Amino acid sequence: MRHGQEHIDHDMVKIEVNLDDIPGEWLGHVMELLLKEGANDVFYIPIYMKKNRPGTMLQVLCHESQKSGMMDIIFRETTTLGARYYPLSVKRLGRQFRKVETPWGMVSVKEGLLEGKIVQQAPEYSDCKAISDKNSIPLKQVFQEVWKQLK
Amino acid sequence: MRHGQEHIDHDMVKIEVNLDDIPGEWLGHVMELLLKEGANDVFYIPIYMKKNRPGTMLQVLCHESQKSGMMDIIFRETTTLGARYYPLSVKRLGRQFRKVETPWGMVSVKEGLLEGKIVQQAPEYSDCKAISDKNSIPLKQVFQEVWKQLK
Amino acid sequence: MRHGQEHIDHDMVKIEVNLDDIPGEWLGHVMELLLKEGANDVFYIPIYMKKNRPGTMLQVLCHESQKSGMMDIIFRETTTLGARYYPLSVKRLGRQFRKVETPWGMVSVKEGLLEGKIVQQAPEYSDCKAISDKNSIPLKQVFQEVWKQLK
Amino acid sequence: MRHGQEHIDHDMVKIEVNLDDIPGEWLGHVMELLLKEGANDVFYIPIYMKKNRPGTMLQVLCHESQKSGMMDIIFRETTTLGARYYPLSVKRLGRQFRKVETPWGMVSVKEGLLEGKIVQQAPEYSDCKAISDKNSIPLKQVFQEVWKQLK
Amino acid sequence: MRHGQEHIDHDMVKIEVNLDDIPGEWLGHVMELLLKEGANDVFYIPIYMKKNRPGTMLQVLCHESQKSGMMDIIFRETTTLGARYYPLSVKRLGRQFRKVETPWGMVSVKEGLLEGKIVQQAPEYSDCKAISDKNSIPLKQVFQEVWKQLK
Amino acid sequence: MRHGQEHIDHDMVKIEVNLDDIPGEWLGHVMELLLKEGANDVFYIPIYMKKNRPGTMLQVLCHESQKSGMMDIIFRETTTLGARYYPLSVKRLGRQFRKVETPWGMVSVKEGLLEGKIVQQAPEYSDCKAISDKNSIPLKQVFQEVWKQLK
Repeated sequence: MRHGQEHIDHDMVKIEVNLDDIPGEWLGHVMELLLKEGANDVFYIPIYMKKNRPGTMLQVLCHESQKSGMMDIIFRETTTLGARYYPLSVKRLGRQFRKVETPWGMVSVKEGLLEGKIVQQAPEYSDCKAISDKNSIPLKQVFQEVWKQLK
Repeated sequence: MRHGQEHIDHDMVKIEVNLDDIPGEWLGHVMELLLKEGANDVFYIPIYMKKNRPGTMLQVLCHESQKSGMMDIIFRETTTLGARYYPLSVKRLGRQFRKVETPWGMVSVKEGLLEGKIVQQAPEYSDCKAISDKNSIPLKQVFQEVWKQLK
Repeated sequence: MRHGQEHIDHDMVKIEVNLDDIPGEWLGHVMELLLKEGANDVFYIPIYMKKNRPGTMLQVLCHESQKSGMMDIIFRETTTLGARYYPLSVKRLGRQFRKVETPWGMVSVKEGLLEGKIVQQAPEYSDCKAISDKNSIPLKQVFQEVWKQLK
Repeated sequence: MRHGQEHIDHDMVKIEVNLDDIPGEWLGHVMELLLKEGANDVFYIPIYMKKNRPGTMLQVLCHESQKSGMMDIIFRETTTLGARYYPLSVKRLGRQFRKVETPWGMVSVKEGLLEGKIVQQAPEYSDCKAISDKNSIPLKQVFQEVWKQLK
Repeated sequence: MRHGQEHIDHDMVKIEVNLDDIPGEWLGHVMELLLKEGANDVFYIPIYMKKNRPGTMLQVLCHESQKSGMMDIIFRETTTLGARYYPLSVKRLGRQFRKVETPWGMVSVKEGLLEGKIVQQAPEYSDCKAISDKNSIPLKQVFQEVWKQLK
Repeated sequence: MRHGQEHIDHDMVKIEVNLDDIPGEWLGHVMELLLKEGANDVFYIPIYMKKNRPGTMLQVLCHESQKSGMMDIIFRETTTLGARYYPLSVKRLGRQFRKVETPWGMVSVKEGLLEGKIVQQAPEYSDCKAISDKNSIPLKQVFQEVWKQLK
């Protein structure tokens, strides 16, 4: 069982790029590459840019040491000529995993601890989805079954 | 003074297109062309499309008789292979215009009438903006001045 | 216990208005009035309008017989000169309510039935929130407790 | 080579559902199921719902004959108690496919015809992405190479 | 009369959380709790997250000294395992209040001063809304009446 | 030919303002003024604010030395009583321009260089749009023609 202590990480960074000259279908690919490179999170925000242009802001969250690699992907795969960034601190809960038995197999549950107390219990999406896909059961029913097993 | 009676227009249509393979900067141009062609309104809605694609929905409001011309622009200027549409009814207020004197010149005010009663009074944006640009006065101050003159 | 049969309602209507000349704070008030008047749902969609204007589309769902009353509120309380609408059909699940006992009191659960089979079980937000507020318990904990009691 | 004539399809339908009580991660799964079932398009629109709830509107475009199957998925997999729908017409361009040779292999290009004239030429995303992934070439470079080969 | 001097506050902080596994209805409650705890502002941004998930970014603006209390609410009431933050400076206008007489009672107007000059005049929403609700007058009419009284 | 070296700019700043009491039409004007003043970028983000208010976040990117001028415009032209800001670093590609011959005239292409290698080639929007407007050619056709000329 993996166990992570509650802590504050002061070496995170957010990278931002405004995009108004790239097709949306390329951006799905960019997200995939950045996540594969190890970004903590990658997401898009709809923005309204000058000259009536619907645009998209790309945001990447990563460790300071990964910044350069993320920038390379951004410059190679998007159409931007510049990328801005600024430092972030992140407070992270302690983490531990629990296994829960369901009629269709085991599901991992990620737990978050604040000062040693469990405040989050999140069934792993990939486990639930695999059960849902294999057994043709609605995904929500799988989650509900796991929630019932939790104390 | 132009005067429009309150009425319901049953011959309007909305055209919609989902776009995930076009740069945002082209869409500013598309909006301009559709408005020049006489569309009642053209606007964009941010949407989340498959494969993690940030997309944009184009919506055009126009009279049924203009539909074909709008479609031509959409097919020539965007990247879509299909455009959907459906009929709309529009209830419109009666309209009349009033002139208001400000220290910097006249401003038109569009009034909307519901059963003969004025329910809307909208200073014309282009008049106010022209005054603001010419006299280096904040736009909001121009609007506020006009509002004060209204009864 | 209220009990609604699964059915299709063919007399619904959607009213839409694009707004680019109204402050957001007024729109919270408009939503309140439309819901009080009996609208089935009222919500806002962010849109990108001409001349680089961030705008808002108001959408109201209501029964055909309520359309006129909703229109009156829209014309009196917003700044629009026109409102469009079109008919909708709505398929509704059968509905029934169940009571669930928690350590902090009863909670209603709304159930949705498709061909006689329960496919939805939704704890009532207002019941859960009341418990959360009164007992200073996280809202999610109240929901989780209710889910555990459900079969 | 598939070949489709320009035509108008009058038997399409749009299904809409407002969701404020479902986690976003379930919605990725719902999109997948609806597309697998044969929907023409599935997408999400961010909406602002009552009681300060960030919500999501699900929209599904499909043929009238598929409506019932889509509804079943929606009721089983989401948390809604009702789903609205209305008919759409869709004007579709004629379609044909062309093969383009690149240094890394063949790419299909979908062409759209308006009154017999080619107005759209879209390199197939999946072909370009496969080349990009296999050869570690930026996706945009693959698209640009294909565009150069087009007349 | 309260009077605040124009100044720059260097001890503000922004807290951000990305959420893709929480129902929207819980987020209305979270906003309420954070505002009650004394946040300067709380708002939601629609974002597009991995695996086709419509997500929501929570942003909280507060004084550095309040950060810990806000974090506690976020961890207890949402589903996140981490919350990021970064420091902000805020330039604030001087503030003063003025009372304006209307036919239906007094309304407070908040004024903003830049280098001693009034640049903002905002009728208090809650005063205007109370008048609107009590007298069944459109909210916009109350605001317009107040604007007319302002110099 | 202008030529800019690849570099990191550590003196940039982002200014942010949340707006819920300003009409959208004024915001188009504000964007114009900020860009005229020399902002690197100005854009709007749709946000969900308290009391069910659809709001807009204004973001301005500029050099630290321009901050004060931008603030003045914001306070004079919008309705806010405060504006927050924080420092940014921006990595910028090297830049050079190339001229491309088309059947309708010259088009500038902006190129971005990463470690001396061209990674971006962007036809200038204004050149392409001028050709499109003058010759009544779809904008996308102009871009495609330019792309074909690029090596």
